[in-house]
Amino acid sequence: MDEIDLDARHAEKMRKKKEARDKILASKTIEKGLLIVHTGKGKGKSTAAFGMVMRGVGHGMKVGVVQFIKGRIETGEKAVLDRFADLVTVRRMGEGFTWETQDRQRDIAAAKAAWEIAKEMITSGEFRMVLLDELNIVLRYDYIDLAEVVAFLRDEKPDDVHVIITGRNAKDELIEIADLVTEMTQVKHPFRSGVKPQQGIEF
Amino acid sequence: MDEIDLDARHAEKMRKKKEARDKILASKTIEKGLLIVHTGKGKGKSTAAFGMVMRGVGHGMKVGVVQFIKGRIETGEKAVLDRFADLVTVRRMGEGFTWETQDRQRDIAAAKAAWEIAKEMITSGEFRMVLLDELNIVLRYDYIDLAEVVAFLRDEKPDDVHVIITGRNAKDELIEIADLVTEMTQVKHPFRSGVKPQQGIEF
Repeated sequence: MDEIDLDARHAEKMRKKKEARDKILASKTIEKGLLIVHTGKGKGKSTAAFGMVMRGVGHGMKVGVVQFIKGRIETGEKAVLDRFADLVTVRRMGEGFTWETQDRQRDIAAAKAAWEIAKEMITSGEFRMVLLDELNIVLRYDYIDLAEVVAFLRDEKPDDVHVIITGRNAKDELIEIADLVTEMTQVKHPFRSGVKPQQGIEF
Repeated sequence: MDEIDLDARHAEKMRKKKEARDKILASKTIEKGLLIVHTGKGKGKSTAAFGMVMRGVGHGMKVGVVQFIKGRIETGEKAVLDRFADLVTVRRMGEGFTWETQDRQRDIAAAKAAWEIAKEMITSGEFRMVLLDELNIVLRYDYIDLAEVVAFLRDEKPDDVHVIITGRNAKDELIEIADLVTEMTQVKHPFRSGVKPQQGIEF
């Protein structure tokens, strides 16, 4: 098949693809605040959530961020979010990774306090998007009650608020009620070749 | 086991975890510009890349962005990147999705031009991070030569430049030479329940 035939065939195929695509999109009419979960062992869970926060900010949305686990070095993100302090409210509630604090009662207290802030933000009417960063981790350790979290997100989250939840090992009950779930799967990781955490990549 | 025992056991377990973790991190000493690939059918590939760009910017890094496919509505990202015009250079080279242009020769010309810009950015010495957004798509359609792209990234990418490549269906040859590969896997997507593309989520 020569180039001219290829081009003609391509044009026809793409015309049909556009037709099918436009038809599908026309059938999507519901607008609603989504419950979004980023989970899996791969990188990009919090980074994609941070990207969504920045995209929301680009639209002038007010965004709330609750960090359930502090301890990730995150100077780069902080510097950017600080530039948009009029739109973004960040509450760093966690005391650090569990292996840094080594204090279960302190971790539980921090997680419970963070969850109270999260509920306030979600129902306040002030935010169009709320990121609950690493919530999955404190749920996994049973630091806050899964049933309560699920009931709140299902029954009390206002319809016009997007909630994004990150962290490995998302609970099945959370995936069940979520609208959008992406699993970040690790295919290759540079630590394996002795590369250290670097600016712009890990923090 | 009562709470006090649980706490003591937790503290001991976390102390060991920290010890193991610190040991592992101490063995990671190499610092180098990474070749990063975000692929898979799930959401978050470009969003996580955009998050990395913003994190780099937060560190004061100069970042270059080449968009191989225009057509995604991306007003939110654009508004944010424009606020950091001193650090971020964006080149929107693609003409639109293949099913929008319906013109194979125009798509090929746009992809080739974008690849020339990409090579310039990567070797210029000006940028610490370069995002090649949706490069995988034009490679998949054979609009630019895979062998040339792989040879360039393997042999000519400067050691201190991070390159991030996004798009579904990353070629095996690219995964082979990459340092960090994440596959975004779709677990649940709101389009399935009739929800339309929304501000802050899709664009």
